[in-house]
Amino acid sequence: MRQKRFILQENELPTAWYNIQADMTNRPMPPIHPATKQPFGVDDLAHIFPRECCVQELDTEHDFIPIPEEVLDKYRFYRSTPLVRAYSLEEALQTPAHIYFKNESVNPLGSHKINSALAQCYYAKQEGTTNVTTETGAGQWGAALAYAARVFGLEAAVYQVKISMQQKPYRSSIMRTFGAAVTGSPSMSTRAGKDIITRDPHHPGSLGTAISEAVELATTTPNCKYTLGSVLNHVGLHQTIIGLEAEKQMAMAGEYPDVVIACFGGGSNFGGIAFPFMRHNLKDGRQTEFIAAEPESCPKLTRGEFRYDFGDEAGYTPLLPMFTLGHSFKPANIHAGGLRYHGAGMIISQLLKDGLMHGVDIPQLESFEAGMLFARTEGIIPAPESSHAIAAAIREAEKCKQTGEPKVILFNLSGHGLIDMSAYDQYLNGDLMNYRVTDDDIKKTLQCVPQ
Amino acid sequence: MRQKRFILQENELPTAWYNIQADMTNRPMPPIHPATKQPFGVDDLAHIFPRECCVQELDTEHDFIPIPEEVLDKYRFYRSTPLVRAYSLEEALQTPAHIYFKNESVNPLGSHKINSALAQCYYAKQEGTTNVTTETGAGQWGAALAYAARVFGLEAAVYQVKISMQQKPYRSSIMRTFGAAVTGSPSMSTRAGKDIITRDPHHPGSLGTAISEAVELATTTPNCKYTLGSVLNHVGLHQTIIGLEAEKQMAMAGEYPDVVIACFGGGSNFGGIAFPFMRHNLKDGRQTEFIAAEPESCPKLTRGEFRYDFGDEAGYTPLLPMFTLGHSFKPANIHAGGLRYHGAGMIISQLLKDGLMHGVDIPQLESFEAGMLFARTEGIIPAPESSHAIAAAIREAEKCKQTGEPKVILFNLSGHGLIDMSAYDQYLNGDLMNYRVTDDDIKKTLQCVPQ
Repeated sequence: MRQKRFILQENELPTAWYNIQADMTNRPMPPIHPATKQPFGVDDLAHIFPRECCVQELDTEHDFIPIPEEVLDKYRFYRSTPLVRAYSLEEALQTPAHIYFKNESVNPLGSHKINSALAQCYYAKQEGTTNVTTETGAGQWGAALAYAARVFGLEAAVYQVKISMQQKPYRSSIMRTFGAAVTGSPSMSTRAGKDIITRDPHHPGSLGTAISEAVELATTTPNCKYTLGSVLNHVGLHQTIIGLEAEKQMAMAGEYPDVVIACFGGGSNFGGIAFPFMRHNLKDGRQTEFIAAEPESCPKLTRGEFRYDFGDEAGYTPLLPMFTLGHSFKPANIHAGGLRYHGAGMIISQLLKDGLMHGVDIPQLESFEAGMLFARTEGIIPAPESSHAIAAAIREAEKCKQTGEPKVILFNLSGHGLIDMSAYDQYLNGDLMNYRVTDDDIKKTLQCVPQ
Repeated sequence: MRQKRFILQENELPTAWYNIQADMTNRPMPPIHPATKQPFGVDDLAHIFPRECCVQELDTEHDFIPIPEEVLDKYRFYRSTPLVRAYSLEEALQTPAHIYFKNESVNPLGSHKINSALAQCYYAKQEGTTNVTTETGAGQWGAALAYAARVFGLEAAVYQVKISMQQKPYRSSIMRTFGAAVTGSPSMSTRAGKDIITRDPHHPGSLGTAISEAVELATTTPNCKYTLGSVLNHVGLHQTIIGLEAEKQMAMAGEYPDVVIACFGGGSNFGGIAFPFMRHNLKDGRQTEFIAAEPESCPKLTRGEFRYDFGDEAGYTPLLPMFTLGHSFKPANIHAGGLRYHGAGMIISQLLKDGLMHGVDIPQLESFEAGMLFARTEGIIPAPESSHAIAAAIREAEKCKQTGEPKVILFNLSGHGLIDMSAYDQYLNGDLMNYRVTDDDIKKTLQCVPQ
């Protein structure tokens, strides 16, 4: 019998997150204030975020940070997630590679976002916060936050990009089902929103407008904190539960990955699966290759520059050291909404600079072709974001077919695509296209990055 | 640490289905020909269905039927499914009851239907069939069949009720993603469809029209077999993998259920979880109570009559011995589309007649209230069908609160509701209502049952 799925029992779950900052040769550079250029400390960040998240954000000392028992208790709702050997995909590709995927789609919300949402809401609750707020585009993060807030008895207010709310109505229904107040952004509920609507009554909204509104709500409401679904160090930290489980499960399978792959938006699911394995490159001389799969239409890792830039379109955040296309870069309207972000998180940017990982850019049609093959072999319809990881894994498996090497490839299936079926419909109807960014486009938006 | 989830390793999966027919004191009465009133034999049924399914349909001899290795291999994609102790739901209800649920939503298609789809397609393939066909309403069964056909290299043609296809577009996208040809019924592709459209060009379709078209396609196409997602004995047989796993998992939890509950449409998910436990009532003197939760708007178990009736609206099938509301009964348009069926399967009908189980009828609003509470405590948005089981479990848990009894309640979560979010939206907006059937309505449709 060939074993397909490897699952940990509850008493085998990891009980600490892995903080790669403690093991990096070159630590990530700090976030700085746009005006003073002074580094942000915990106190500066704690006006906006739960304090413990800010401590974790800047912690370069502790390699393992214990997961609070209350968070672990909630993880046990759905963890461990399965590690799966993709025999059927291997057969279809006729590759000698051994392909494994970590299935983060198997949880109530359908994506990995829940791992950090639970942690952030727990810390907010511990600190006496009663309300949390955030922004969301397609809604994966907003749905996870709405659920986590409910779990810890917090009220959640989510600003969803207005046009996304109309395009993906199911995700706002999910948030409402969990009890969140969902507002299309720009809205009349904040000063920022009112300003935008007064200037342009038909503004479709963007992550930029939604971040502005959520941050304003957090900073003007007593006992309210803002939360973020990717990019920041503490978000990636919480996601390392993925890779720590996968490490134990790969051992159950008697293997260790030669290549680790994840799709890349802000970096949280990539960091989640990659960092725990990367520690063995950093400390034990392992030579595992790490590949971040970004969309061709938003190529910050492969074609961006390492610069201090704003984390949001509107320029409200601290300046962050990141590989960026410029915060005013407007990614094409691809279906992988979670990958439409102009920059990479601080840790990832440093690792990329130091050559510890690399990016590949995947055209939209290649991602859907990969997603379809995966659905038809492994039976799971992947999120359009995750299909980028699948496409990169297929490229590696096809190289193995050429060379005959039986490499062990591990990728993260960050979520399922059941709420994204309209995208598959468009693909099946031949209505999708690729969007290749020109060098001129990138040059233009990089010119707007502050010096 | 309180353990929440109980999961079997792959080598612990059951390797045979349980055939309750072999253990029943009163065997189910046979299907009969409408004109001759002669019992249908394997040869009669095998014109339409895969032969091995017909053998299983009428098998009253073997209590365990081995699961073919090829089917087991596909089960390992997603099985075992978790058994979960619903601590949060218990806390919310302040009940001394121990509530467990078997989570059949955790598979690529999101419902239990896949368990039988894989078996039926395997047997079809084994017998040299190249094409399978079926009908589907909301699309849970059609999606499962499309996937299973792909797995075994068969072509699938699904007739989906035209109005459902328009109301739930995501499910037809799922079927197409797995490569099935999906046709809205009534269609111009069959004689039956043409007749209907000629009479009424705007006919919205029904399971009746879709069954007629699928059966016609199967009987007029070489190497094509028809498959069905519930009602028949062999479908319930394949679903017993659910209860057989749950039995092992309850043992891991150190408990045995006092009450087993499932929602009820044609009977396949109910039989799946109930029969393996019921065998200990039949053979070992256990006293477990079995509750089938049907919608108030389609109350065949609680208010129907035991009669020989057609399995479909149009009267194309053999006559089946069933608790029925009459095959011309038109259930209200509730969101639990999978429970909108006029009759109960043959085995269930006999068990109900013999007092080995009973039904409860759940109003639509109570089902959604239960579903919301479950989502907000256990984090999983249930399918509207499954919410009927949850509502029945909550009723039992509340009885325990009155009596102080710490009963062990087990229910089957047959699927998730991520494709049904528009239903939750309507509930949250206050746009849903109950539909109570009058005695006169039932009397009228029972008059049309053949004598």
